[in-house]
Amino acid sequence: MSTVAKRELAIVLLSGGLDSCVTTAIAHRDYRLAFLHLAYGQRTARRELRAFHAIADHYQAKERLIVGLESLAKIGGSALTDPSIPVPEAALDQPGIPMSYVPFRNAHLLSSAASWAEVLGAGKIFIGAVEEDSSGYPDCRAEFFRAFEAAIALGTRPETSIQLLTPLIDKQKSEIVRIGRELDAPLELTWSCYKSSELACGRCDSCALRLRGFDSAGLEDPIPYAPEI
Amino acid sequence: MSTVAKRELAIVLLSGGLDSCVTTAIAHRDYRLAFLHLAYGQRTARRELRAFHAIADHYQAKERLIVGLESLAKIGGSALTDPSIPVPEAALDQPGIPMSYVPFRNAHLLSSAASWAEVLGAGKIFIGAVEEDSSGYPDCRAEFFRAFEAAIALGTRPETSIQLLTPLIDKQKSEIVRIGRELDAPLELTWSCYKSSELACGRCDSCALRLRGFDSAGLEDPIPYAPEI
Repeated sequence: MSTVAKRELAIVLLSGGLDSCVTTAIAHRDYRLAFLHLAYGQRTARRELRAFHAIADHYQAKERLIVGLESLAKIGGSALTDPSIPVPEAALDQPGIPMSYVPFRNAHLLSSAASWAEVLGAGKIFIGAVEEDSSGYPDCRAEFFRAFEAAIALGTRPETSIQLLTPLIDKQKSEIVRIGRELDAPLELTWSCYKSSELACGRCDSCALRLRGFDSAGLEDPIPYAPEI
Repeated sequence: MSTVAKRELAIVLLSGGLDSCVTTAIAHRDYRLAFLHLAYGQRTARRELRAFHAIADHYQAKERLIVGLESLAKIGGSALTDPSIPVPEAALDQPGIPMSYVPFRNAHLLSSAASWAEVLGAGKIFIGAVEEDSSGYPDCRAEFFRAFEAAIALGTRPETSIQLLTPLIDKQKSEIVRIGRELDAPLELTWSCYKSSELACGRCDSCALRLRGFDSAGLEDPIPYAPEI
């Protein structure tokens, strides 16, 4: 794509995890990027913020916005934000929605992204949500994103036009790993673990999905893990 | 309605203004209420919070949640949240969206309400939005609320069912004043002014709409106003 076309601005929701890093690499091919990070009282907030800045530095991003979502921390209802609910060990093949589900979380992320997009004049929002390979969160499904995009169209100025892009929505984790490698995404800078802030635990849902993804892709995960006890 | 039916829980978004107070009075007839207040860096946040507690006390509410939306303050783009943009004098008959529009604000309020509703098990969310008599904000229109309700249905657990109720959406301010009086809503405790935190200014968009509403209803506004200079 030409340099002129690349000057169109897109917002990327960058948590600092594997999926958002690969989404960044995809968006980076065609757009100027503005990075949005949301801290919602999750246990590993500091570690994720460190990953956010490392990845944003890698892509030499000037526009960065870090926002605290006090609401989700106060509302609770999830093992990720409520200290009284323990983070479960991986149970990837169990049916139902796991305790790490943060009620309606993605609506909060997308609301912030849409408000910022309207102020900056950005016409695209990228989010690294994954439907099939995620843990069954209802707010990670393609039909939720289509519905939210319709709400953005109706709830912003008539001249505002914002598209929600979810390039990984139908991908398996192994494909995401492969795409990331192809696009030279800095996977070594990412953080996925729900539980720890030092070495990734290797046992929570998120670590288990990630490790299974690298394994299926036949690639080695470049981050270190805590030794098994 | 019977006492048993009244035990169903509803969340009311209570800013402390006239419309949310009258919405509370409507919801109070049929539901047990949980009150949600969101501070988004608006100039009159403290004064609005005082009104919130006064109205919640009036209705003897036990469930109250006050949440700061740092995102909207940081994102800016509105005269209500960005100190570099002046609050305009009333221009009620001018076309277009006024500078007091906070980009996609209601999506943030509704996201918090929906997350809290899912955690509490509340099946209804009341919001005192007014389409025709408001200042032309896109996120105050009935079609936006319908779209957001659809996004809530798709983005929450399958067993969660949340209805968005906007009982004032098609009302004129004068009707809202009359309904409030009929239902003994404590209008004397409400705060509407965008500009001041002491005596209401009487001149901003919000004051002008309110005063015109009382005038058309043939009733006197029970709150004091700053003397005209």
